[in-house]
Amino acid sequence: MRLFNKVAIVGVGLIGGSIGLAIKKRKLAGEVLGISRRSKTIKAGLKRGAIDRGFFDLSIASEADLVVLAAPVNSIINTGRKLSAVIKPGALVVDTGSSKKEIVAALAKILPGFVGAHPLAGSEKQGVINAHADLFKGSLCILTPTDKTRKHALTKIRRFWVQLGASVICLSPSRHDKLVSCISHLPHLVAFSLIHSIPRRNLFLAASGFRDTTRIALSDAGLWKDIFLTNSHNLLDALKKFKASLSRIQSAIAKNDPKALEKILNQARLKRASLNKK
Amino acid sequence: MRLFNKVAIVGVGLIGGSIGLAIKKRKLAGEVLGISRRSKTIKAGLKRGAIDRGFFDLSIASEADLVVLAAPVNSIINTGRKLSAVIKPGALVVDTGSSKKEIVAALAKILPGFVGAHPLAGSEKQGVINAHADLFKGSLCILTPTDKTRKHALTKIRRFWVQLGASVICLSPSRHDKLVSCISHLPHLVAFSLIHSIPRRNLFLAASGFRDTTRIALSDAGLWKDIFLTNSHNLLDALKKFKASLSRIQSAIAKNDPKALEKILNQARLKRASLNKK
Repeated sequence: MRLFNKVAIVGVGLIGGSIGLAIKKRKLAGEVLGISRRSKTIKAGLKRGAIDRGFFDLSIASEADLVVLAAPVNSIINTGRKLSAVIKPGALVVDTGSSKKEIVAALAKILPGFVGAHPLAGSEKQGVINAHADLFKGSLCILTPTDKTRKHALTKIRRFWVQLGASVICLSPSRHDKLVSCISHLPHLVAFSLIHSIPRRNLFLAASGFRDTTRIALSDAGLWKDIFLTNSHNLLDALKKFKASLSRIQSAIAKNDPKALEKILNQARLKRASLNKK
Repeated sequence: MRLFNKVAIVGVGLIGGSIGLAIKKRKLAGEVLGISRRSKTIKAGLKRGAIDRGFFDLSIASEADLVVLAAPVNSIINTGRKLSAVIKPGALVVDTGSSKKEIVAALAKILPGFVGAHPLAGSEKQGVINAHADLFKGSLCILTPTDKTRKHALTKIRRFWVQLGASVICLSPSRHDKLVSCISHLPHLVAFSLIHSIPRRNLFLAASGFRDTTRIALSDAGLWKDIFLTNSHNLLDALKKFKASLSRIQSAIAKNDPKALEKILNQARLKRASLNKK
């Protein structure tokens, strides 16, 4: 079902590339234009069939009736600002950034067709080489409209993500940032810290538990630096709560209190188990 | 290749059951006797074919030329003590506990054929129902002999684990406990803490990253309570280092220092990536 004539994707990585592949597979647009600073990325995007044509310059986005900003958070903000001078009237803009408050604050005013989005899909694997058309199938996509968001823009962007296979919910940008700070940003911070704290010479003993717990520490450092810094208030708050949990377990161990320790561990186990039932 | 006439497995859970299945598959013993307090476990072990006969009472272990203690750490110590009054002269004993210093200190003196072992295999899934004959295939098993360990016992126990499919290394009990405190016990503590710190109402947003990072928090609370408390000194030390890493990242975020933050994250990413090359 065609929703757009031309879609321009700025940033043809894992997410942008997967959106391109999904658009092509589901015939949601007549043409997909890819924009990247790197010729290697454009070549790979063309080869994978994620984009129909590739460009270095943002000006081609003037042809699009949907522009997808799929880059690290700070790039989304910078590109969005430049886009406001280029974009054609009535065109829609959506981003894929993992923190929303700063992006929406910067772009909602200058891009009338903008709707913030955060697809909770992805992988620690990077680049269009790892993109696939079904990345969003069965995933959750959070849209973060404000009271200024145009109704038809929200409706159409919602339909777009549903067509990509996602379930869509709406949250305010600040509510979004608070929720994902503990369920996504904190686990990344923890995984990076855990790896950081372990002597390299001990890694030979790593088994599947360690590998799974630290898998997301394979994520792109530049991307996550932006996410952490644009959601720092919530993230530091979540970190404080996490440290309090650590200290509770630490205290039960230090006091050699098996009853208190087993109780905390079992509470955590049951909470985690409740996830698997969904 | 038959190594033993009769093997008695005390604790027919995931690990004990998998050892039974592996022994049967590879014909390493003439008969496998299962010992458990619970009739449900014995029934399940018989049904899975992990044991040939099941018993509630430890006295049957007098028939065995190898006794495998596959229970939580404190049960291993308690059962090992009782075993010393029952076991036949010359019989070997091996355990599967995840901390070794306390177990070896308690049992090496009273069980002359004892060799401590820690198979780095397993799963958050519990019970003989999840056991399988190839659980140890490609895994690492750490043996923790002391200067009192009989040479033929070590040789035969090593051969046993190799036959189960594991690579075997030897470490002293205290070296073992130090190494696994950071590579296995700390990640479990972190996963339990992470789940503990997250409001239950936010769990609906959990995506694959969160699920993987906290998967090991599905592990048995009683089992891990024992492990944490019998390796508390090393674990608290590892936790201190982990908290220092957390604080370094926290400080870079609080200072809004993108350069320092990206550097730490990237160091961690590269260290984690080095694991995948093995």
